[in-house]
Amino acid sequence: MFSGAQISLYPMSDDFIGIILGALSALDPWRDQLRIETDDLSTLLVGPPEILFPAMRDLFVAAARGGVHCTLHATVSRGCPGEPDDPICTPLGGLPPGTPLPDRIAAAQAGVTAAALTGQTVAAQFSLYPLGLGHHMDEIYGCIDFLKSSGTFERSKNFCTKLRGDAGPVFETLSQAFTGFGAQAGHVALDVTLSANSPSKV
Amino acid sequence: MFSGAQISLYPMSDDFIGIILGALSALDPWRDQLRIETDDLSTLLVGPPEILFPAMRDLFVAAARGGVHCTLHATVSRGCPGEPDDPICTPLGGLPPGTPLPDRIAAAQAGVTAAALTGQTVAAQFSLYPLGLGHHMDEIYGCIDFLKSSGTFERSKNFCTKLRGDAGPVFETLSQAFTGFGAQAGHVALDVTLSANSPSKV
Repeated sequence: MFSGAQISLYPMSDDFIGIILGALSALDPWRDQLRIETDDLSTLLVGPPEILFPAMRDLFVAAARGGVHCTLHATVSRGCPGEPDDPICTPLGGLPPGTPLPDRIAAAQAGVTAAALTGQTVAAQFSLYPLGLGHHMDEIYGCIDFLKSSGTFERSKNFCTKLRGDAGPVFETLSQAFTGFGAQAGHVALDVTLSANSPSKV
Repeated sequence: MFSGAQISLYPMSDDFIGIILGALSALDPWRDQLRIETDDLSTLLVGPPEILFPAMRDLFVAAARGGVHCTLHATVSRGCPGEPDDPICTPLGGLPPGTPLPDRIAAAQAGVTAAALTGQTVAAQFSLYPLGLGHHMDEIYGCIDFLKSSGTFERSKNFCTKLRGDAGPVFETLSQAFTGFGAQAGHVALDVTLSANSPSKV
């Protein structure tokens, strides 16, 4: 099993370098569970599927706290057959293999309900890609059922679903979508864009 | 058939609104072939698969021309079974159904070789998601073979492939990857981040 994320933080400010560097310490509590590598396009986080979104949440909330319009983009993946198994990625929990879709939806809802608030409102849109399945739309429609009852759903868009709310439940919604849908030991990718402090609100 | 892209342009500048608004006229030559809708997170382009990347190229080069560090993110999709058929999306050409992978690789290489230069260097990383296929990795590995001989390949990364070069051949490489790989009438998504004028070069 291999899991991780390529993440990029974009502060819309002349001081984008300072804002990015200032937010990085928010990753410190997660560093012993992650392998982190940075280049000019993104930062790779490799670690258990369950902690990728909490780590991103802490980074993004730290960057947005100063009020600058910031976005974060992440390409998140688990179970890619082209990646080597890595012990650092061992899942921390999860439902038993074969858990039916209605039970996975209920567990995901409970996870979002339990999420702590951060005080930072964010908008997000994301796409879930369950790969290597002939019936991939069943998992997508099941995930959409969960999203519509998550409390963070804003609307369906072409190619993605839009969320809005406190960063705590929004990132937890993303985490539940990523870990709870698609084949349990299979290849799932998720692509997400988050935005805070936007001057536009449509 | 439905095809389109959710695109977002991020200038890392206090004047991000002015840079975005100033670049929008670069889309004018494409407007009669596209349906365009904007909200606070992204702009939807709906139109034939072949013109999505040329339209994005013109927008991004216009935004980057002033030298500000800009990124563009796009979630691009064709053939999603959850979207309605739309006449505006009718493909403009393409190889006959069933064209073997080696012939598709050769056609994609020829497309990149013919791409006009823009004078703007960009870096890009992207993931291709051929959905609804049991053998999705065959299409991904075929696409990677094309990328490695495209002249724009920089390196493989976890979850994505990184390109670098003039925006002309880089966007054409993305366009060929999107239209030439995955099932020809099937569901393919592509997720890409492009960067220009970055202060980092790794």
